[in-house]
Amino acid sequence: MSARRRTLCLRGIVAFVEKVTKEGSVDFVAAERRIATFDNDGTLWVEQPMYVQLAFVLDRVKQLAPEHPEWKTTQPFKGLLEGDFKAVAATGEKGVVQLMAATHAGMTVDQFQKIVGDWLSTARNPKLNHLHTECIYQPMMELLAYLRAKGFKTYIVSGGGIEFMRPWTEKAYGVPAEQVIGSSIKTKFEMVDGKPELMRLPEANFVDDKEGKPIAINEVIGRRPIAAFGNSDGDQQMLEWTAAGDGPRLMLLVRHTDGAREFAYDRHSSFGKLDKTLDEAKAKGWIVVDMKNDWKRIFAFDK
Amino acid sequence: MSARRRTLCLRGIVAFVEKVTKEGSVDFVAAERRIATFDNDGTLWVEQPMYVQLAFVLDRVKQLAPEHPEWKTTQPFKGLLEGDFKAVAATGEKGVVQLMAATHAGMTVDQFQKIVGDWLSTARNPKLNHLHTECIYQPMMELLAYLRAKGFKTYIVSGGGIEFMRPWTEKAYGVPAEQVIGSSIKTKFEMVDGKPELMRLPEANFVDDKEGKPIAINEVIGRRPIAAFGNSDGDQQMLEWTAAGDGPRLMLLVRHTDGAREFAYDRHSSFGKLDKTLDEAKAKGWIVVDMKNDWKRIFAFDK
Repeated sequence: MSARRRTLCLRGIVAFVEKVTKEGSVDFVAAERRIATFDNDGTLWVEQPMYVQLAFVLDRVKQLAPEHPEWKTTQPFKGLLEGDFKAVAATGEKGVVQLMAATHAGMTVDQFQKIVGDWLSTARNPKLNHLHTECIYQPMMELLAYLRAKGFKTYIVSGGGIEFMRPWTEKAYGVPAEQVIGSSIKTKFEMVDGKPELMRLPEANFVDDKEGKPIAINEVIGRRPIAAFGNSDGDQQMLEWTAAGDGPRLMLLVRHTDGAREFAYDRHSSFGKLDKTLDEAKAKGWIVVDMKNDWKRIFAFDK
Repeated sequence: MSARRRTLCLRGIVAFVEKVTKEGSVDFVAAERRIATFDNDGTLWVEQPMYVQLAFVLDRVKQLAPEHPEWKTTQPFKGLLEGDFKAVAATGEKGVVQLMAATHAGMTVDQFQKIVGDWLSTARNPKLNHLHTECIYQPMMELLAYLRAKGFKTYIVSGGGIEFMRPWTEKAYGVPAEQVIGSSIKTKFEMVDGKPELMRLPEANFVDDKEGKPIAINEVIGRRPIAAFGNSDGDQQMLEWTAAGDGPRLMLLVRHTDGAREFAYDRHSSFGKLDKTLDEAKAKGWIVVDMKNDWKRIFAFDK
């Protein structure tokens, strides 16, 4: 069964790619239109027990706390430092903005990327005990490489922050900075000691999730993808918009079914909830990868 | 003199390109970092006697007027239809928003691109009497091609609307949709007859001019250009930001000095005003192209 499912899933992908790359075929798609978009959290790398960017926020608040004695008595920082996440959650959107302002703003873009890079050089997934940048799905890496070898341009389209991803996506995924689309905060062009810098402001600019994904894809790429890959309800509109174009289309969901080797979650998860989109995928015949049964090896570090 | 200036200008460009592409040299720049950004209006195509996108607005209002009898008595439409631009100008920002809403919003992205493409297939520059898409600077086309042949990725970074440019930039300039950065209005993802569409809303999203240019370059490309090309004060911050990076840099301004073959304008022009940035270019040694003396042929259609 597992070998058979693997074959079927692979056959669906290969059949699509062969169709659109066969010159002279009615389904042929010129190389410049072979756009493939990938969600990141839960599609290319692990998003449990919490989003990596959230783990960064927690670590960063702890690291900066000595410079901010007031955090010991002010929410949401107090709750976060004491592990009282209920108190953090109670601060709502205002709390999120405060945490983002404290950890993601007030420095130049270059400085922020350095902070992220430094953190990622040691931060590990607590269950898998590997660097976050090693907790990436080997079959998806093979898929990225396969598509690029067939002339596709592979993009990341993530709810995560653009500048949180750019320091490492090229090395980890082979996806360069200009093919990373994500959420962002506002920046300001200003002269610092006579040198122009882009300063990160404590203000949201764009949330690249749900309806935001097709909007950002259109804004940045200006073409509709012919293939899209996701794992949660945040990817629904990107998959729908991809599916609605003319000609052959490939839509794929990664389903997290392996509680032993990775994490098992779907309809009721706080991170990467997959509910409506799973029903839609089944109804519309999109490919749904069953990680436990379809993926022989999940990570490069697996035996 | 003119031959000498041409040689000097060309030599500055060629010297830069040879430096950054010579493997093993201290100034070598890897291909993925060879980002070159070009302003569009006045740098790649003609922006006089008015911005092409403004000419589109005028024509579009005239074309739609029969469906809007109320425009005969309402500003800014009344003034525009009667050629009373003073009355149009008096409506200020509110008037601009109304004109944009009437001509740029209320349809899908695909529909708008079709409208623009149709208009450009017949619209001409009134003085040069050629299609707008033919009123493009031949030496700049050669420069784009030369840079690409040397491994550069060439981007447009324009104050003009993204979707106003994308229908024709690939054919005219060899710049594909995903390398076009510009101003934009908001779009909304919505289901139309069960099919997902991106609808254009009558609301500004981003103004890609002045400080907006480095901000958008960072947001979309995620890398600082090593070469930037402009012609007006709207390009100042893009040039400054490019200049402030490490290693060799190329900054170039096109100066409109040829009132016979094109248009002569700079410090006091309503469109493409070049004032502070010209002084800065001279002070900092950026290349300033003198169109009259440096360009033997301005357009491909020139004898």
